[in-house]
Amino acid sequence: MSEPEKSEDIPEESAGKEKGSPNGGNPAKSEEDFNLAAIYVSDAQYNRNIYFDTSPQAVRLYMRYNHWIPKVLLYFFILVDLSLALFEDPAIFPLPIWATMLVELLCLLVFTLRLGHYAQVIPRDKFWKDPKNICIIVILLLTLVDMIIYGALKATNCYGVRWSRVLRPLLLVNVTEGRQLRRAFRSIRNALPQIFYVFLLFMFSLLIFSLMALKLLGKRGLKTIDGSPYFTNYLQILFDLYVLVTTANSPDVMMPAYNNSYVFAIFFILYILINTYIFMSVFLAVVYNNYKKYLKEEVRQLVRAKRHKMVQAFGVLQEQREGGGEPVVTHHNWNQLIRLVQPDIRNAHRELLWSVADDNNQGCIGKVAFVQMADLLNIEVITLKSRPHPLHGLCPALYLSAPSRLLCRLVQHRAFVIVYDLIILVNAVFIGLDEENPLIANSEWAFLALYLLEILLKLYVFEPRAFFSRHSFWNWFDTIIVVSALLATIVNSAVMSTGNYTSRQILDIVFILRVLRLIRVVDSIKRFRTIINTLIRIGPAILTFGQLIIVVYYIFAMVGMELFKGKVKFYAEDSSDPEKAFCGNPLLNGSDFAQLNYCKNNFNNVVSSFVLLLELTVVNQCSGFATVTHASARLFFIVFHIMVVIVIINIFVAFVLEAFFVEYSVEKSDLQTSLERKIEELELAVAVNSNLNQHKRLCHLKCSAALLKCLPSLFTLLLSVSKFYNLSPNS
Amino acid sequence: MSEPEKSEDIPEESAGKEKGSPNGGNPAKSEEDFNLAAIYVSDAQYNRNIYFDTSPQAVRLYMRYNHWIPKVLLYFFILVDLSLALFEDPAIFPLPIWATMLVELLCLLVFTLRLGHYAQVIPRDKFWKDPKNICIIVILLLTLVDMIIYGALKATNCYGVRWSRVLRPLLLVNVTEGRQLRRAFRSIRNALPQIFYVFLLFMFSLLIFSLMALKLLGKRGLKTIDGSPYFTNYLQILFDLYVLVTTANSPDVMMPAYNNSYVFAIFFILYILINTYIFMSVFLAVVYNNYKKYLKEEVRQLVRAKRHKMVQAFGVLQEQREGGGEPVVTHHNWNQLIRLVQPDIRNAHRELLWSVADDNNQGCIGKVAFVQMADLLNIEVITLKSRPHPLHGLCPALYLSAPSRLLCRLVQHRAFVIVYDLIILVNAVFIGLDEENPLIANSEWAFLALYLLEILLKLYVFEPRAFFSRHSFWNWFDTIIVVSALLATIVNSAVMSTGNYTSRQILDIVFILRVLRLIRVVDSIKRFRTIINTLIRIGPAILTFGQLIIVVYYIFAMVGMELFKGKVKFYAEDSSDPEKAFCGNPLLNGSDFAQLNYCKNNFNNVVSSFVLLLELTVVNQCSGFATVTHASARLFFIVFHIMVVIVIINIFVAFVLEAFFVEYSVEKSDLQTSLERKIEELELAVAVNSNLNQHKRLCHLKCSAALLKCLPSLFTLLLSVSKFYNLSPNS
Repeated sequence: MSEPEKSEDIPEESAGKEKGSPNGGNPAKSEEDFNLAAIYVSDAQYNRNIYFDTSPQAVRLYMRYNHWIPKVLLYFFILVDLSLALFEDPAIFPLPIWATMLVELLCLLVFTLRLGHYAQVIPRDKFWKDPKNICIIVILLLTLVDMIIYGALKATNCYGVRWSRVLRPLLLVNVTEGRQLRRAFRSIRNALPQIFYVFLLFMFSLLIFSLMALKLLGKRGLKTIDGSPYFTNYLQILFDLYVLVTTANSPDVMMPAYNNSYVFAIFFILYILINTYIFMSVFLAVVYNNYKKYLKEEVRQLVRAKRHKMVQAFGVLQEQREGGGEPVVTHHNWNQLIRLVQPDIRNAHRELLWSVADDNNQGCIGKVAFVQMADLLNIEVITLKSRPHPLHGLCPALYLSAPSRLLCRLVQHRAFVIVYDLIILVNAVFIGLDEENPLIANSEWAFLALYLLEILLKLYVFEPRAFFSRHSFWNWFDTIIVVSALLATIVNSAVMSTGNYTSRQILDIVFILRVLRLIRVVDSIKRFRTIINTLIRIGPAILTFGQLIIVVYYIFAMVGMELFKGKVKFYAEDSSDPEKAFCGNPLLNGSDFAQLNYCKNNFNNVVSSFVLLLELTVVNQCSGFATVTHASARLFFIVFHIMVVIVIINIFVAFVLEAFFVEYSVEKSDLQTSLERKIEELELAVAVNSNLNQHKRLCHLKCSAALLKCLPSLFTLLLSVSKFYNLSPNS
Repeated sequence: MSEPEKSEDIPEESAGKEKGSPNGGNPAKSEEDFNLAAIYVSDAQYNRNIYFDTSPQAVRLYMRYNHWIPKVLLYFFILVDLSLALFEDPAIFPLPIWATMLVELLCLLVFTLRLGHYAQVIPRDKFWKDPKNICIIVILLLTLVDMIIYGALKATNCYGVRWSRVLRPLLLVNVTEGRQLRRAFRSIRNALPQIFYVFLLFMFSLLIFSLMALKLLGKRGLKTIDGSPYFTNYLQILFDLYVLVTTANSPDVMMPAYNNSYVFAIFFILYILINTYIFMSVFLAVVYNNYKKYLKEEVRQLVRAKRHKMVQAFGVLQEQREGGGEPVVTHHNWNQLIRLVQPDIRNAHRELLWSVADDNNQGCIGKVAFVQMADLLNIEVITLKSRPHPLHGLCPALYLSAPSRLLCRLVQHRAFVIVYDLIILVNAVFIGLDEENPLIANSEWAFLALYLLEILLKLYVFEPRAFFSRHSFWNWFDTIIVVSALLATIVNSAVMSTGNYTSRQILDIVFILRVLRLIRVVDSIKRFRTIINTLIRIGPAILTFGQLIIVVYYIFAMVGMELFKGKVKFYAEDSSDPEKAFCGNPLLNGSDFAQLNYCKNNFNNVVSSFVLLLELTVVNQCSGFATVTHASARLFFIVFHIMVVIVIINIFVAFVLEAFFVEYSVEKSDLQTSLERKIEELELAVAVNSNLNQHKRLCHLKCSAALLKCLPSLFTLLLSVSKFYNLSPNS
C-alpha cells in the first residue's frame, strides 16, 4: 500500500454538509487517526494478524512494512536463497564456494533487515513471544554458524556438510507473509495425533502380517525371482509388505508364494484388502476429518480477529451523533478511509459499497455495518458499462446496416460455436497425422487463418473492452494461443526457408501451441465448464499446497543429496562407457535398477532429486538406493512416503474433495450469501436513487443492448474457495 | 418366520381386562388379521418391499416364502450354480459336461420353483411389471437355450462357448433377497451420468496429453528399454499414459524422455499432477457425492415404505376406543402381534418395548407409537441380570474369603491388563525367533499356560454368562484362539512324537493361531478400540460390497477365460520343461511377463482368474495378455479398470469415509437418537414401576455388584451403520 495522501478531487466539507453533518459536535479526525483506521481495515481485509504498535511513528513504519516492494524483494531473496542449491555442490551449474557464500550472506542480510523492520513495528514483548520470529533468528544464526564452519573446513581441505541448507525452506514458512502456509502446516500438526493412532494400528497390522508371513512362508525354501531366499528375514518382509501398501511391488512380492500354492493368495488378498484398501481409506478419512475440523477452527479465529480489527478501526473513527445514541462513522470519514485503504478504487464502486453499508440512507453507519466492510471490500465487483461498439460510433450507418446485423446474429448463434468446435476436431485429426506431408503442413495455415477470423469476428461483434475484460479467461486464452501460434509458425517457416536447418525448440513450441488450442472445446460444453471452473477456483489454494510440497521436497532433497550423491551416475545415451550398464556403481551390476535404465533417478543434483522425489510420491521404488548404500537407507524412503503420501497427498485429496462438495452443495441449494443478496437489493436501490452516482451509473443487464447477451450477469461475484471459507461462519 | 401359533402361556382375556378393556365394543380380531398385521410389521422391520396379495391364502403362502429354509436353499443353489465354473472347462477339477449340465438344470429348476412361488404371492400385474422378475425369467431362458446349443455343438464335436455363464452372477442381484445389492447397483447406476462427464473430461485431457507427447517426443528417435521406438504410435501412447494414471508403469514410461532431457520431466509432472492426482480426486469426489445423495434418497424412500407398512398393520389391528377419539391398538393385541413377529422374544423385552411405546401407561397405543415399533424391534437390547457368581452360590464362604476377594481385585486391576499385554509382547518376540531352538519351542507351552490361566482367572472373577455374552467379542476371540491353539499344539506334538514326520498344515495352523493371539493387544488401548469398532461396524456393509465385487469379477472372469484361456501356461517350480521360460507361449519369449515369473497370472481357471483380477485392481499390469493375443485385448483391461477401480473402489472408499465421518460426528456431538433417549427415560420408569416385570427385572448398572464394572453400559445399542441411515431422517 502506498503512503496515504490527502485526496483533493472531492471537496471535503460539502460531503459532510449534504448529509446534514452528523459530526457537528465532534473534533475533526487527524491524519494519524485515518492512518491507524486504514491499517486496521486493511489488516482485516487481508487477514493479517499483527499486533503492531499504535504510536503514529510505528503505524507509519508498519505501512511501509506492508508495502508491496519489500514483500516482493523478500520473496525474491528467498527464491535466490533456495535456488542456491543449483550452484552448490552437488551442482548443476557449479560456482565457486565464495560466490554462493557471498550471495547467501546477502540473503541473510536482507532477511535480518526485514526482521529488524518488523521488530520496530510491533511491541518488544510481542516480538520475543512470537515463535516465528525466534525461528527466523535461529535459522539465521545456525546458517551463519554453518557457513563459518563449512568455510573453515573447506579452507583446510576437510570434508564438510552444509547441513543448514535443510533450514532454508523453513524461512518460507516463518516469514510474516507465509500466513497461508503456516495455517496449512498448523492444520497438519493438529491432525497428527489422530493420524498417529491410525498409523500405529496400521503398523501393528503390518507387524502381525509380517510375522505371519515369516512363519507361513519363510520355512518353505521358496526363492524370489533373483534366486535369493523368499520371506526369511523379518525386516525384509516388513519392508516388502510396506511397499506392497504403496502397490509398487504388487504382483512381484506375491508371485513366489502364489506359484507355490493357490492358498497363499488368500494371505495376500487379505493383506491388500485390510492394509491397502481399508487402512488407506481410514487415513484419508482421518486426515480429511481433522483437516476440516482444524481449518474451520482457524477460520473461526480469523473471522473473530477480523471483527476485532474492524471494531478497533471503528473506535478510532467513531463520532457521537447529535441526538445521542450509538456512535457512528460519517460518510465523509468513510470516504477518506476507503481512499486510504484502496487508493485505486473507483468512485462508483465506493458509492456502491457505501449504499450497501448505509442501508437506510442516513449519511452515517453504525458499528455493525462498519464491521462488514472488510468482507465487502474483498468482493470483486465488475462494473460493465453498456458502451456501444467503437465501430458503431465511427460509422454507424455501416455497423447498423442489414449485412452487418446479420453477421452479428450469425456470430452470436449457437451454430457458430458448433462449427468452430468441429473445426477444432478436424484440426485435432490433422495434428495427429504426419506433418511431413505437405498437404498437412499447409493445412496449418488454413486453421490458423480460421482461428484468427473467429477472433476478429468476435471483436467485430462484441465490444473489445468487454471481450478482453479481466475475467474472460477463455477469450484471453484463445487470443494469446492463436497469436503466439501465428508468430511461432511464421518464425518457423522463416527459419526453414532460409536453410535446411529446422529449429527443434521453435517446432516444439508450435506443436504445444497447436495442441493447447484444442482445449478450447471444453468451454463450449456446459457440464465441463462447471468442473473446469471448480478446478480453476481451487487454483490459488493449490499454490499454497505447491509451497508446502516444495518445503517438504526441499528438505528431503537436501538430506537425500548428502546421503546419496554420486552413488548412482547417469551416462548420456551415446556414451560408450562400460560403466553405463550399471550406473557407474558396480553394486548395481545386474540389478533391476540398472536394467530398467533408472540411472538418472538419482540425488546428484537438486533438479534430479526433485524429479526422483516426485516419482517416489507416485510409486515408491527405492531398491536401488538401498543396494548402493545400506538397507537402512530404506528408512529415508519410508519416512518420505509417510510424510508425503499418507499425510500431504491425503490432505490434497481432502482439499479437492471439500472444494467439490462445497461446489455441489452451493450449486444445489442455490444458496446466496448475505452479501450477494445485499448487492442484489442494491440493484434496485441504484435503479431508484439514480441521483447517487449520475455521471457513471452502474448499468443493468436489461438496459444494455443485445450486444452483451453472452455475458451471463452484471456482477460476477468471484468468491474464491478461500473467501467462501471466510464467509461461511457468518451465513 | 415359522407358522404362527396361538400362544397359550398368557391368558388372553385377562390382559385386556386388566387395562380396563378398551376394546369393549370392538369385535375380536381373527387369526388372519394377526397374520396379515404380523407380515406387515416384519416386512417393515426387515425393509422388505413386496406388494403381496392380502387374501388369507396368499398371506399364508407369503409367510412360507419368507421362511428361512427356502431362502437358505436358494442361496445354496446360487452358490452351486456359481461354483460350477470350477468344474466346467477350463476347469480346476474337470467333470464331464453331462454332470455339470445336470447340476445346472437342477439349479434352474430350483430358481424356477422359487419364482413360481413368488408369482403366487403377489398380484399378477405386479409380477409382470417388476423388472427383476423379467430379468430372472430372461436369464433362465437364455441359460436353457445356451445349454441346448452348447450340448448340440459338443455332441457334433463343434466349438461352442458357454456364454450364458456371464449371466449367472446376475441371479444374485435379481433374487428377492438381493435387496442391499440391488440398492448398491442402483446407487452406482444413478451416479454414472455425473461420473461419465468427469470421465469424458479426463479422456479429453488424456487425448490432449497423448497428442502433445506424440508431437514432442515421437520425432526424437528415442528408444524404450527393449529397443522399440518410443512414443511414435498414438494408440500406444494413449494406452501408456492411461496406465500411468494407475501408476503401474510410473517411472518406466518416462525414463527414455527424461534420460534425453530434464525438460521432458515437466511434461510428465504436469500429467501426473492433473490426471493422477487431480482427476482421480475429482472422481472420488463425484462418486462420493452422488453415492451419498442417492443413498439418502433410497433411505428416505425406505423409511416412507416402512411407515406405510406400519400404518397398514395398524389399520388391520386398530380398534375404536369407548370414549371415541383416535383409533388405538390394545396391549393384548399388541402382545399377540409381537409374539407372531418375533416368536423368540423374551417377555421382559416385550414389556420394555410396550412401556416405551405406551408412554403414559394407558393400556393402548395410537398410530404414531405403533409406527415406531418397527425401529424399536430392530434395536438389540441386551438384558443383563446381576446374577451372583455360581461359585458364590456354591460355597459363599470360600468365594467371599479375603484371599478370593484380593484375587478378584487383582484381576480387575489395570495392572493385570498391562502385565498380560507385556506377556503378549514377549510372546511376539519369541514367535519371531527361530522355533527350532528347543527353549523357544518349549516356551510356547508356558505362554499357552499363561493365556489359559488368564481366561480361568477371568471366569473365576466374572459371571460366566456375562463373560460369554453375545457381544463380548474379545472374550470369545480370546477363548477360541487359546483353546484351538492348545488343541493344535497338542495334536502337533503328538504327531511329532509318533514319528519324524511333521505335518506342515497343522504347524501352519498353530503358527497362525499364535500370531492371531497377538491381536488382543489392540483391545486394551482405548484409541485403537474406537477405530476397530468402526471397522467391525462397517463389516456387514463390506459384505454387500463383497457380493458386488464378486458379481463384477465373475462376469470379467468368464469373459476373460473365453478370451485368454490357455494362452499362458503355468509350469510347476520343479518342472524341467523348456517352455517354462516363456510360459508355454513362444510370443512371450524374453518378455517382462515371463521374466518376472508371472505365468500363474492367467485366465486358465476361475480361481487364477479371480486372483489375476484382484492383482489388476491393485496394479493394472496386462502387457503380457496383449502380447499373446492382440493389442485390442487391452480394451478388456481398460474397461475392467474403469469399472472396478474408478467406480467400485471409489465407492468403497466413499463408504469407509462416510462410516468414519458418521462415527466422528456421533462421537463429537454426543447425539442420541430419540430411541436411545426413550430407553433412557424408561430406565427411570422401570425403577418406579418395578411391578411391571417383577420376576425378571432389568437391573441397573448401579444396583449390580462391582463384578460388572468392566461392562460399560446396560443397554448396548448396536446401531449398525445401515440402521443409522434408516433412523437419521427421523431424528
